[in-house]
Amino acid sequence: MRVVLAPDSFKGSLSAPDVCAALGRGIARALPDAQILARPMADGGEGTLDAVLAAVGPAGCRRALSVQGAGGGAVEAAYGEIGDGTAATAVIEVAQVVGITDAGAMAVPVADRSTRGVGELIAALLDRGVRRFMIGLGGSSTNDGGSGMLAALGLTLADRDGRPVDATPRALASLAGVDAARVDARLRECEIRIMSDVNNPLCGDLGATAIFGPQKGVTPAEAPAFDATLAHYAALAEAAVGRHAAGLPGAGAAGGLGFALQLVGGTFASGAAVVADLIGLDAALAGADWALTGEGRTDRQTLLAKAPFVVAQRAAAAGVPVTLVSGAIDAASLPELSRHFAGCFALPNGPATLADCIADAAALLEARAEQAARVFAAGRGAAARVGR
Amino acid sequence: MRVVLAPDSFKGSLSAPDVCAALGRGIARALPDAQILARPMADGGEGTLDAVLAAVGPAGCRRALSVQGAGGGAVEAAYGEIGDGTAATAVIEVAQVVGITDAGAMAVPVADRSTRGVGELIAALLDRGVRRFMIGLGGSSTNDGGSGMLAALGLTLADRDGRPVDATPRALASLAGVDAARVDARLRECEIRIMSDVNNPLCGDLGATAIFGPQKGVTPAEAPAFDATLAHYAALAEAAVGRHAAGLPGAGAAGGLGFALQLVGGTFASGAAVVADLIGLDAALAGADWALTGEGRTDRQTLLAKAPFVVAQRAAAAGVPVTLVSGAIDAASLPELSRHFAGCFALPNGPATLADCIADAAALLEARAEQAARVFAAGRGAAARVGR
Repeated sequence: MRVVLAPDSFKGSLSAPDVCAALGRGIARALPDAQILARPMADGGEGTLDAVLAAVGPAGCRRALSVQGAGGGAVEAAYGEIGDGTAATAVIEVAQVVGITDAGAMAVPVADRSTRGVGELIAALLDRGVRRFMIGLGGSSTNDGGSGMLAALGLTLADRDGRPVDATPRALASLAGVDAARVDARLRECEIRIMSDVNNPLCGDLGATAIFGPQKGVTPAEAPAFDATLAHYAALAEAAVGRHAAGLPGAGAAGGLGFALQLVGGTFASGAAVVADLIGLDAALAGADWALTGEGRTDRQTLLAKAPFVVAQRAAAAGVPVTLVSGAIDAASLPELSRHFAGCFALPNGPATLADCIADAAALLEARAEQAARVFAAGRGAAARVGR
Repeated sequence: MRVVLAPDSFKGSLSAPDVCAALGRGIARALPDAQILARPMADGGEGTLDAVLAAVGPAGCRRALSVQGAGGGAVEAAYGEIGDGTAATAVIEVAQVVGITDAGAMAVPVADRSTRGVGELIAALLDRGVRRFMIGLGGSSTNDGGSGMLAALGLTLADRDGRPVDATPRALASLAGVDAARVDARLRECEIRIMSDVNNPLCGDLGATAIFGPQKGVTPAEAPAFDATLAHYAALAEAAVGRHAAGLPGAGAAGGLGFALQLVGGTFASGAAVVADLIGLDAALAGADWALTGEGRTDRQTLLAKAPFVVAQRAAAAGVPVTLVSGAIDAASLPELSRHFAGCFALPNGPATLADCIADAAALLEARAEQAARVFAAGRGAAARVGR
């Protein structure tokens, strides 16, 4: 009997490896003879760097550089390097630079937050000769359309009088001219793979501001102005670079970093699918009897491109049933979720607050995995009795 | 594939048949070919009358009599009659007479509540020629040691001056003399089967007042006096009747009705076991593939004699795995519960209040049953693949 554990992290609570450990303890109690394969997943957001480094083993190493954080202060940004010399690939997780878990940056208004540090990091890596990038989007605190990153890489932003404009949503309101002449030419030699779990465009009803702005502090009253500023900036930047990107899937990821990276030649991919390939998920699933996945909260969005859905797709292809254990499950989405998962379970043992669930997450995960495994074992046993 | 549903009611939320219906809807979605057998359980408390009447079918009928409720007002008390003439068995559920869900009675202080109505009901049935009784204890609002019932059946209670004493905890404090000479002689001809889910004695640390008093309104400050009054009353009553009963298992059931009924010759049995026999649970389980049970809240107490535990025992004897779905599950009890249940699941989809769980109980039950069934099916499928 082989069981594959391939959860995403529980954001704000447990890393994916910690989720695997808790699930594994529960499974082992109910199915003591099971072989358990832990394959922690990620979707481009927080945890992606760890997942990729764990997958590539000794070929990769974890490094860090000091760059500007979203709020203006310095952050020590971790990144990964796989291979070396001209063949090296840098793995960047933007959440490490402009992460929404950076309390200092979150204390600065979203109108003043910038992705400049992401550009600084890329520039420093270009100086080191890196020409291949894997950039995980997600978990950012910014909504600057990636203007900060582009400015750090040489894009010139000016107002109607030709004066420099800061790359922040507030300052971009007075943007009148964009010049791409001084954008780092080395970017043209680069292969940039963007990893994201969202397909949203940059602007509009499904854009970065409308969908992800609120969690970053954009109020409903401010949202139209934020969106209009990004649209104006994007049009000018597209004209300057000579490429369209604002309408591409994923342009709205990470507050518009998805737009900016595609504007300079990045190619968009499902973060979870890239991670699944890197960690060898298909090989682990081949011949397995059961798989478990999960995330902090599951709803219809999960069925777009989140890690549990990618796991469900890979498991279905391998003929392996996959059970979902999440912190919370949107009840209205259960009918759709049930088409993809062999059982969906939430954490609580009964009435409980969100804070209780977060505080007890590991123990609750362990309990849910154990109880689900007992039902799985009961189903196996019932089939065995029929077979006798 | 055959699935047996044998839950208790979810007190204050859903009857056992309603729980069966919700579980059945969920199972049918996940296992459309399954044959589903609904066997609603009860444990002597609320729902016992319905479970028994459903089990005996046309041999039984539901009747009602107007008697005194716990708070002094009249209640229309439902009871059951199985068979007729001298062979008739009356099924009494004390929760129908002195139930804790009677808001009017609960507005009267527990010190003034009485079980007199239970005695009135028995006396009326004796007048009709009934000599066989099944009396379900549980869900009572009273803590009078069954003194009210005994007084209605002829037990004389007096103070030190020989003046009559009311059969309430408050009045019993001045009890000095008990006379059994006028207790209804017809009781000696009766077979009285008591159905209860608790083994507690009448008094002491595990007695009626200490364990069940708080939920009826006995404050910690009052508890010692309540307990002492019951002990004093019991000693006088035992001496008058010439039989000991206060220390018997179940004497503390229904605020001491278990004591009073055993004092007049009643025999104590596990309510859930009696109901399981009546509803033919063993026959339903024979050859079944899976069973589900549940209750409003599950903890270590469940493993004494509650309905889900009796179902687990019967299912184990039949070699059928049984899964528990309850409103809430005490996390600390999971290791013990896991020895008896093939999976224990609580209702919530995520962080939720008790009120939300109660309001959505049917939908949540349906969802949990469906999701558990999907895992069960996954286990069966995994076994089938191995068998190929």
